[in-house]
Amino acid sequence: MSLLVVGSLAFDTIETPSGRREEELGGSAVYFSLAASVFGPVRLVGPVGEDFPLALVEGWRARGIDAAGLEVVRGGRTFRWSGRYAGDMNAAETLRTELNVLGTFRPKVPAAFRDSAFVFLANTHPATQASVLSQVDRPRFVLADTMNLWIETERPALLDLLRRVDGLLLNDGEARMLAGERNLIAAGRAILRLGPKWVIVKKGEHGSFLFSADHFYALPAYPAERVVDPTGAGDTFAGGLMGSLARDGAADLGSLKRGMLHGTVTASFTVERFGTGGIAAVDAAAADGRHREFLRFVSP
Amino acid sequence: MSLLVVGSLAFDTIETPSGRREEELGGSAVYFSLAASVFGPVRLVGPVGEDFPLALVEGWRARGIDAAGLEVVRGGRTFRWSGRYAGDMNAAETLRTELNVLGTFRPKVPAAFRDSAFVFLANTHPATQASVLSQVDRPRFVLADTMNLWIETERPALLDLLRRVDGLLLNDGEARMLAGERNLIAAGRAILRLGPKWVIVKKGEHGSFLFSADHFYALPAYPAERVVDPTGAGDTFAGGLMGSLARDGAADLGSLKRGMLHGTVTASFTVERFGTGGIAAVDAAAADGRHREFLRFVSP
Repeated sequence: MSLLVVGSLAFDTIETPSGRREEELGGSAVYFSLAASVFGPVRLVGPVGEDFPLALVEGWRARGIDAAGLEVVRGGRTFRWSGRYAGDMNAAETLRTELNVLGTFRPKVPAAFRDSAFVFLANTHPATQASVLSQVDRPRFVLADTMNLWIETERPALLDLLRRVDGLLLNDGEARMLAGERNLIAAGRAILRLGPKWVIVKKGEHGSFLFSADHFYALPAYPAERVVDPTGAGDTFAGGLMGSLARDGAADLGSLKRGMLHGTVTASFTVERFGTGGIAAVDAAAADGRHREFLRFVSP
Repeated sequence: MSLLVVGSLAFDTIETPSGRREEELGGSAVYFSLAASVFGPVRLVGPVGEDFPLALVEGWRARGIDAAGLEVVRGGRTFRWSGRYAGDMNAAETLRTELNVLGTFRPKVPAAFRDSAFVFLANTHPATQASVLSQVDRPRFVLADTMNLWIETERPALLDLLRRVDGLLLNDGEARMLAGERNLIAAGRAILRLGPKWVIVKKGEHGSFLFSADHFYALPAYPAERVVDPTGAGDTFAGGLMGSLARDGAADLGSLKRGMLHGTVTASFTVERFGTGGIAAVDAAAADGRHREFLRFVSP
């Protein structure tokens, strides 16, 4: 079934213990689409400046990424992010953010994308995320990402959004903050009461949790022996998850568990190289091989 | 098959966000035995002072804990530990340690225990752990616990021990320290090269990992919504694990995975109450019910 992502395209400057890279292609919509396209076609909506090399988009088309929703802002400059990871690399220290075209982005979903069955609202202002929902017909499953900034500063808009989505994806610290609960299990259950039927909590190297009113599922991370750059791991996880759901054409417990497995496996490719280098090199065969290996690692 | 534990008996004074308890029964051999006895009989070797109420031992007998290896030191006082947990309760701050009879403890394995098939060497000086190995005939599976103190100060003795045991059990920080590797997967694999065929890494609320030359297994923790007191969780995990192995009469991959499931479930009871209150209240039916629930939580 059809899959839509609305998010960012970026150039990232990244420092990790493995080295430093400047102007690496990045952005939530990019990582998401590269991961989701392992499982099937994906539709992308997001803004870039005139400095964005459209040759990249040609490569995506061959992969099944439909960038008809790419908005090239006249005279604009693409979003830039610069960050550093140290120690166990569980969190990035943001050194610099240049919003550029992202600062004034008002998503416009192309008419051809309005019938999308699966929708991922990558992290941005919750009102901007909500504006996408009024531009799609009757999506079967909507998953939203968010971050500490909106939890702290835009709680009313975020709570409005949570009543309109099927699932919320966030990391453990954000889940604790949103719920006001120190215990992560209690936090996940509290967030269900805010609206979403499913809550997926990402714990980085410690895996992920799925909460619903009737079910709980815990999945470890893939045992990565060398993490070069964690940038984009969360959006890659989301892309593998939603790509798998769209391929299944379902969002029940079984499909969500399968999706988390696929999301974990695709994210494991992302962290092995700088930027999108890891996930861009993955085809269905590589993803499938690691998926089978990972299933062995986590099957009781 | 028969199961032996050599470890400590203690009175603990514990502060957690849930409250404070003085002179709670504790010690590695106690938590271990209470957990292992859910699965079958267990033999206990450890020292106490004259202040230890032997009525406790009567209760254990009914549970299948054979305390024939209890050494009551004349004029001695039982080991005391005092600690505090704060925040996410992932680590205890030790406030006070009174070694008492533990300081001069030289384990003597009773003749009737020499044929033990499964042996758990609870955390103590590695030379003391090694001295147990020369007092048992030909155990089928020996698992040792250790801690940062011995890794830092008694590395040669610890390395000697590691060449003589089948498995090593330690937490994530200790694994990184022992291996000199920041990445936990790399650390687990490096420790295999020091001798043990199996390495089990405990990650507290983040679950546990099993490493061998040919296999890897990752298991999340039980989703405890309320953690009252984490004291003894690691030794309870070891008790459930070894109790399950002894019941299986095997220590192959399947039995070790099953053992980790049982260890996780028994540990989840321990953290729900202060001291041994949680695990002491568990019978086979309660453990079995939660085991089935947990299997659902972690089955892909």
